[in-house]
Amino acid sequence: LRKTHVGIGPVVIFGASNFPLAYSTLGGDTVSAWVAGCPVIVKSHPMHAGTGEFVSRCIVEAIRKSGMPEGIFSNLNGKSFEVGEKLVRHPLFKAVGFTGSMKGGRSLYDLASRRSEPIPFFAEMGSLNPVVLFDKSTDTLSKQAILLARAVTTDAGQFCTKPGVIFVNSNISEFFVGELELALSDSATHTMLHEELYMRYIKRLDEVNQTNGVRQRRFTKEGALSLEGVIAISQTTINYLLTEETLRYEVFGPHVLVVEYEGFNELGIALKQLGGQLTISVFCNDSAQIEQSFFIQVAYDIAGRVIWNGVPTGVAVNLSSNHGGPYPATTDSRFSSVGLDSWKRFARFVTWQDTPQKILPDALRNKNPLGIVRKVNGKLTNLSWH
Amino acid sequence: LRKTHVGIGPVVIFGASNFPLAYSTLGGDTVSAWVAGCPVIVKSHPMHAGTGEFVSRCIVEAIRKSGMPEGIFSNLNGKSFEVGEKLVRHPLFKAVGFTGSMKGGRSLYDLASRRSEPIPFFAEMGSLNPVVLFDKSTDTLSKQAILLARAVTTDAGQFCTKPGVIFVNSNISEFFVGELELALSDSATHTMLHEELYMRYIKRLDEVNQTNGVRQRRFTKEGALSLEGVIAISQTTINYLLTEETLRYEVFGPHVLVVEYEGFNELGIALKQLGGQLTISVFCNDSAQIEQSFFIQVAYDIAGRVIWNGVPTGVAVNLSSNHGGPYPATTDSRFSSVGLDSWKRFARFVTWQDTPQKILPDALRNKNPLGIVRKVNGKLTNLSWH
Repeated sequence: LRKTHVGIGPVVIFGASNFPLAYSTLGGDTVSAWVAGCPVIVKSHPMHAGTGEFVSRCIVEAIRKSGMPEGIFSNLNGKSFEVGEKLVRHPLFKAVGFTGSMKGGRSLYDLASRRSEPIPFFAEMGSLNPVVLFDKSTDTLSKQAILLARAVTTDAGQFCTKPGVIFVNSNISEFFVGELELALSDSATHTMLHEELYMRYIKRLDEVNQTNGVRQRRFTKEGALSLEGVIAISQTTINYLLTEETLRYEVFGPHVLVVEYEGFNELGIALKQLGGQLTISVFCNDSAQIEQSFFIQVAYDIAGRVIWNGVPTGVAVNLSSNHGGPYPATTDSRFSSVGLDSWKRFARFVTWQDTPQKILPDALRNKNPLGIVRKVNGKLTNLSWH
Repeated sequence: LRKTHVGIGPVVIFGASNFPLAYSTLGGDTVSAWVAGCPVIVKSHPMHAGTGEFVSRCIVEAIRKSGMPEGIFSNLNGKSFEVGEKLVRHPLFKAVGFTGSMKGGRSLYDLASRRSEPIPFFAEMGSLNPVVLFDKSTDTLSKQAILLARAVTTDAGQFCTKPGVIFVNSNISEFFVGELELALSDSATHTMLHEELYMRYIKRLDEVNQTNGVRQRRFTKEGALSLEGVIAISQTTINYLLTEETLRYEVFGPHVLVVEYEGFNELGIALKQLGGQLTISVFCNDSAQIEQSFFIQVAYDIAGRVIWNGVPTGVAVNLSSNHGGPYPATTDSRFSSVGLDSWKRFARFVTWQDTPQKILPDALRNKNPLGIVRKVNGKLTNLSWH
């Protein structure tokens, strides 16, 4: 018996709204599908159709120059939901990668799973990326406020890993918000990537600020430029977070909700109710106080990445990366859209039994023509066999 | 950054109708969920409720004796579909393993993917396990007939890997069917595992034999004992296989459909239309004739295991096992329900960033308290770090 991966089949990639390069036409999704051995058709994001066309031309030229098969890449433009719908439903496609909103992701996921042949649909649909502050010294909190202010506002907060909620002990919440406001007053604002993102941001800001128990702490549209991502802070307590559903969804843009908590147990309950997250950040210089807590158990129950004394915005691309998490952060917590394992979304196993050398894929032949490391009878080796 | 797997959460396992031990209460599904770190609730198969209860008591005693947490196992009996439905819909369950019919598997898959929080649902739903004969020497065909007769009839054909369709060149099909009949006349019949399986078998036999273009070659109920799995052969041509949908589904029991083909290309087309399979067997003593053929490409496109000159019924449990395949063989071709990788259905990644030693899971601590092999900065080692 010899086992290896093969590509799952042709893959549809939906270009992301917020990352015209890293997650769209030639982003991690397209590349990881190629790594798995799958041809890709990109449904470009309508707000980046021009960028997508430009990048596509480079890809087509690179394919020609390097002698790769032409069919490994296509780019399709289209504004309507119908275009995406038809792609997801087409029987020749065998998997989908998507980065975007919860609403769009879930609708397409539903189509994929209702096909007569259901197909894997990996959607990364955003996250609140909760941050929990345990330290109480004002010095420490001031430094954390500066770090967090930067993470909330970099590139107008248009990151799926932007910290969206900060939990802070009610005893020191006023001090912390004051420091955060101070830090934010130094932050540069940015024009948002496109009108659709801007309009949705403003709408969500209004929703949050008009919710029961929410204090609007910083928000001014006065003097703002067209499409400028105005920086905003809202403040509430853990009880309102638990009762008001609208507070438990992402506000995509440079906004953060500061939530006051009293005890560790209540924190665990609140995090559980927030549900699946890409990341959770814990700021705590004395970990002994929470080692055995319910909170720590919940932290890795809900998140794909647990960060200590750091902000979630930086995403490394390596063997240890995990950019995923329980629903609704993604549609399948077993996979990651970033890192060396991301191709596993698009590959399946095949086992060959007693098969002649010439029929076997190169990876499985005795002579190891690819020179790769293989596990042979339980032992890793890059040598040939027999 | 340090990455490892954690259990996805509580798992529901549906006991299989055909494997009261290997796939039910304490079968590969339950064990692989435990390996991943998940508690399991088994929905026992109603036709094996007694066996399930007996095995469950052994498990409960073993848990007590070994000091494992009690919550890692429960057994639930119930005849109605409603019990399974409620389990799959319950928000505390995070994944499902199922072995059974296409109808039952798909209904439960639909429930799992329509939850407000969709969960991974791995169903293994049977397979035709096509066998393709390329050799033409009568000696070779006689031997192959004997081998295949045994695979079709062992344990009354109640294997998900029973060969259900044999493709044979039309020039020698009459000879081959004669040899197969001869071999089958020596085969012992068996009482089927329970009435439900028997009734479904007889019903499907009738459906197939009454289909356009099908010749019933061997089938007699006369003198058969109660619930006896009567051995049957039907015969047709590739054109009828392409047009008659009822021929393209499993007949669960000791029956085989012999299909005459003319050319290799037509074979590839027919296999493609059969769709996802657990296995495909190729009998061919001169592989040169098919090395470059369309058929070979299709073979691993549709199957989870490709077997050369052998029958599919034996399933090894090791690192190279793959018991899975494209839909409808399973609901997710990226996973296997047998072999050392089967636990991956029930685990997700978590990455820890800059996390204190005491908070990290044992598998990721510097001192490597579990003494396991880990990849540290790209190199495999079982040593501690720092």
